[in-house]
Amino acid sequence: MEKTKLILDCDPGHDDAVAILLAANAPALELLGVTVTAGNQTLDNTSRNACNVLSWLGKGEIPVYAGCDRPLVRDKMIAADIHGSTGLDGPVFPPRTKFPEKGHAAQFLIKTLMASAGDVTVVTTGPMTNLGLALRLEPRIAEKIRQIVLMGGSYTNGNVTPAAEFNIIADPEAAHICFSCGRPVVMMGLDVTRKVLCTPDVVARMAKVNNRASRLFVDLMGHFCRTQKEVFGWEGGPLHDPVTIAWLLRPELVQLKGMNVSIDLSHGPSYGRTNCDYFGYLGLPETARVAVDIDAGGFWDLVEAGLRSYGED
Amino acid sequence: MEKTKLILDCDPGHDDAVAILLAANAPALELLGVTVTAGNQTLDNTSRNACNVLSWLGKGEIPVYAGCDRPLVRDKMIAADIHGSTGLDGPVFPPRTKFPEKGHAAQFLIKTLMASAGDVTVVTTGPMTNLGLALRLEPRIAEKIRQIVLMGGSYTNGNVTPAAEFNIIADPEAAHICFSCGRPVVMMGLDVTRKVLCTPDVVARMAKVNNRASRLFVDLMGHFCRTQKEVFGWEGGPLHDPVTIAWLLRPELVQLKGMNVSIDLSHGPSYGRTNCDYFGYLGLPETARVAVDIDAGGFWDLVEAGLRSYGED
Amino acid sequence: MEKTKLILDCDPGHDDAVAILLAANAPALELLGVTVTAGNQTLDNTSRNACNVLSWLGKGEIPVYAGCDRPLVRDKMIAADIHGSTGLDGPVFPPRTKFPEKGHAAQFLIKTLMASAGDVTVVTTGPMTNLGLALRLEPRIAEKIRQIVLMGGSYTNGNVTPAAEFNIIADPEAAHICFSCGRPVVMMGLDVTRKVLCTPDVVARMAKVNNRASRLFVDLMGHFCRTQKEVFGWEGGPLHDPVTIAWLLRPELVQLKGMNVSIDLSHGPSYGRTNCDYFGYLGLPETARVAVDIDAGGFWDLVEAGLRSYGED
Amino acid sequence: MEKTKLILDCDPGHDDAVAILLAANAPALELLGVTVTAGNQTLDNTSRNACNVLSWLGKGEIPVYAGCDRPLVRDKMIAADIHGSTGLDGPVFPPRTKFPEKGHAAQFLIKTLMASAGDVTVVTTGPMTNLGLALRLEPRIAEKIRQIVLMGGSYTNGNVTPAAEFNIIADPEAAHICFSCGRPVVMMGLDVTRKVLCTPDVVARMAKVNNRASRLFVDLMGHFCRTQKEVFGWEGGPLHDPVTIAWLLRPELVQLKGMNVSIDLSHGPSYGRTNCDYFGYLGLPETARVAVDIDAGGFWDLVEAGLRSYGED
Repeated sequence: MEKTKLILDCDPGHDDAVAILLAANAPALELLGVTVTAGNQTLDNTSRNACNVLSWLGKGEIPVYAGCDRPLVRDKMIAADIHGSTGLDGPVFPPRTKFPEKGHAAQFLIKTLMASAGDVTVVTTGPMTNLGLALRLEPRIAEKIRQIVLMGGSYTNGNVTPAAEFNIIADPEAAHICFSCGRPVVMMGLDVTRKVLCTPDVVARMAKVNNRASRLFVDLMGHFCRTQKEVFGWEGGPLHDPVTIAWLLRPELVQLKGMNVSIDLSHGPSYGRTNCDYFGYLGLPETARVAVDIDAGGFWDLVEAGLRSYGED
Repeated sequence: MEKTKLILDCDPGHDDAVAILLAANAPALELLGVTVTAGNQTLDNTSRNACNVLSWLGKGEIPVYAGCDRPLVRDKMIAADIHGSTGLDGPVFPPRTKFPEKGHAAQFLIKTLMASAGDVTVVTTGPMTNLGLALRLEPRIAEKIRQIVLMGGSYTNGNVTPAAEFNIIADPEAAHICFSCGRPVVMMGLDVTRKVLCTPDVVARMAKVNNRASRLFVDLMGHFCRTQKEVFGWEGGPLHDPVTIAWLLRPELVQLKGMNVSIDLSHGPSYGRTNCDYFGYLGLPETARVAVDIDAGGFWDLVEAGLRSYGED
Repeated sequence: MEKTKLILDCDPGHDDAVAILLAANAPALELLGVTVTAGNQTLDNTSRNACNVLSWLGKGEIPVYAGCDRPLVRDKMIAADIHGSTGLDGPVFPPRTKFPEKGHAAQFLIKTLMASAGDVTVVTTGPMTNLGLALRLEPRIAEKIRQIVLMGGSYTNGNVTPAAEFNIIADPEAAHICFSCGRPVVMMGLDVTRKVLCTPDVVARMAKVNNRASRLFVDLMGHFCRTQKEVFGWEGGPLHDPVTIAWLLRPELVQLKGMNVSIDLSHGPSYGRTNCDYFGYLGLPETARVAVDIDAGGFWDLVEAGLRSYGED
Repeated sequence: MEKTKLILDCDPGHDDAVAILLAANAPALELLGVTVTAGNQTLDNTSRNACNVLSWLGKGEIPVYAGCDRPLVRDKMIAADIHGSTGLDGPVFPPRTKFPEKGHAAQFLIKTLMASAGDVTVVTTGPMTNLGLALRLEPRIAEKIRQIVLMGGSYTNGNVTPAAEFNIIADPEAAHICFSCGRPVVMMGLDVTRKVLCTPDVVARMAKVNNRASRLFVDLMGHFCRTQKEVFGWEGGPLHDPVTIAWLLRPELVQLKGMNVSIDLSHGPSYGRTNCDYFGYLGLPETARVAVDIDAGGFWDLVEAGLRSYGED
């Protein structure tokens, strides 16, 4: 079976780190590179975090490219309340040995996609700035993208404002560019990612794996679940970003529904909302497949298998 | 026990008609009048429907006042796809004998509220145009309103656009006036009204009551459930509007949560959305109590009891 | 020659006061009443000012009706920087003897228009709240309005924000209702009212008339020109509101051009702008005649004649 | 005297062509390159036009770089009504010999600015897409830009909608990026460019110069003035874009006023308006110097001198 080639564009971030963990070692995936944007924290922080996670997992050979340090149009925003001042508070990494490659994330995306046979999936688990910028710098990449799989948005309500989810509101214009690029879009929104809450039970289960990967997972979740509780009030943080990788590995875990999706670009109170036409009121073409349900049990099995794949220390 | 005094402002409409049915004969309620607005159909249609329903139920003594024939600011919209060309397709009424009283609905609201001891609840199950207009024509009524109980909005998604529910998008500016008037607001949104689906089982159960009220109910639901299925695809229409009356009669049936609620007035793609700050992200004061769950079984018991209260023919 | 019947809806306000002065004594006009709204100051202030001006001029028989104390949808705003804490800082009036009639300004508008032969002009020199409310409370008045003549808006730029003029931004939704009511609209915007600057020369000329009316004019302009200079930097304040009355009396003074005019209701940075399609780019129907030039010399002659018409003391 | 180094970013376009003509041969200027964007016509057309104009003028050594073929966020728009199907209808050029260099306009901007001593002016006479994209791809260029001089916007009204001018509405988000980049911005808006109408007299005067440059000018203006008359109704088209170069050569020709300028990004009816706080109402910092008057006579002298500088054939 052929591997699924992908580029993971992210802003680690605790749940991004777990997405990297799952993507970097899955036999069915070929992770061509990790591109990084500002989002959960500043670009300096998120790019360092991506490097540290890969190094820790023994995956230092996977290249990291730093990209945009701010959104395309709107003012900068970060999520320090959730991810702490480093963007990855919790784990303590050894002194840094890995650094981003030369060149901008958007240029890595362009070069890789243009050289490809149209078989590269782009997964985004942060603001979609890098991919949006790449699409405008080299419009011909659109036809080279196999599909865009994103964590972002919601067809119900948001986690930054009542209308908007973080990855979208942090760069609504970039999301608009990506959603309207003409290629298949698969959207994993809060509607399903809130169903994979990393409760203390889950953490305890993963702790038993007891290898480098599981220790990283446990350290990450310690911080993440605490801030989620402070901000949202629930026990156990939703493991948003890894749902993208889980769907690539086991599509049957996630139920999708085709919808017209448009981004609210009004700069008004609903700015950044993904208006998903679940019921088809508007009579507009389907522009994305949106996750509407997830097999949470199967998801946690997949996460555990992902941790175990890193073997014993 | 003192009766709860209320004015029911509505745009019948099938589910409005059931709300009238429940409110007009409940021993715990004193229905001071029914005010009517354009909404599900034109004002001519909705005011005739309100009169016909009351006449049919033997409640011709309850006064009906016609109000606004269009929204405050936006263009007119009606919901003929759901409620048909009369606004109440299905039942066949005898020749009309009841007509609206002289005077505008807003003036009836003002006169009644100003003459009251501050003990009158205003229930709205249509666009909030009449109450919004009354609040601007006579601002002193605000302090006389005991509470506003509305069917409208959603903290998840809409039923006209992905963002907006009919009663709000049909007059967002009026909704804004009402939500910001400073009095307690209780919002029954799609989030709970979609949980009281009037399935064929429900219709069969209510048919067994077999009196004038139940025959009206069955005739109404025949049409309503058919169009709901055509438009939304589900078996059994959500009995939106009567949830307001159900809560007045048995508040324990509905779980409320205080939130800041603001209306999207941008005239953009999310126009008319009720942005409900479920998680309190925005740090703004609570402005409404929003229904977050409902005891559907208890609701149907209440509806059946309401039908039975009309006695045998 | 038949007199032009008019109702003057205003928010005095220095320039409103001069509009009253010109309208109340012109042989060609029949001023049926003065309706008052909040705007330049609160409703208490503006309605007292209207009464005081009429009393001072010996026109106490003209009825005053108080109307809306706030805009239809948006938050209240006043213009204390220009008009002072009373709304009419400058003149000192004797103890008050005249008060508003009973009944709301909107109801006076409705009653007068419905009883008319369709020959009543409505002049607005403040936010258009009263007329907008009346049009929604009694839509049939639309066909009874001969024409709406307003001071407000601009096809260039504003005087509150770079986009919007005070009378419109103080109630954009009411302006939208009025502009879209289907009756002829004549708009006197900043584009021409800024061409009738009441410079010290003008004040000196009017002072020579030396009667009650001219003394009021001089006292008003003393304050008005000072605050205009502080806020806008020019010598002599633009005598905005009286341009409406001047056009009714001598239409040849003002050059009009038919345009499609729509109001920006976005609640964004250009909220309240009158988007006037001067060049006809949009291909939409003309909805108003907009003043594009004024004969300033003729205007001042008319003002002087208006003052002189009050005779010697 | 040191030459002013500049990059001219444009979308020729008749008036862009005249800007190229003036910039390419002025002894006081060093035109480092011409970057091209879609705008008046598609990128294919505008980049061919830039090459043809330079070739015709004997300036084939000045490099041309093609850039963005669409705006950053909004849908594509072109101005075929004004500039025809080629973007430069009128002149007939010999078979094409010059082509754009390899590499994207944004990358030429980045490379040139990063290698500079901070002494390079960027002039834009089209949508600001290339510079906006460059600023997001390499934020460090901001501090390298000496100043941005643009033709675009208006503090009064637009030429595409009542609110917006073409170069801004064709990419409001890019304009926002450029206006907010922190470097000096000089804006030549319609307010002054409409004062340099290329009337038949002007064309006749320039025709007398009778060299390659003047013949190009005459051919360009023949088409341009005809379509301007059809669309706007005036005799003689406003020579918008060359005002930027005129100011660089003779700053005393144009009167500037510092203002806060923000772009309407609401996607509503005033989308793309440059809200220029002429009177300083908003109390916000000055972000641009905006042209408020121009010496039209001096401007035409400069244009004639520019034509003559190309010598006899």
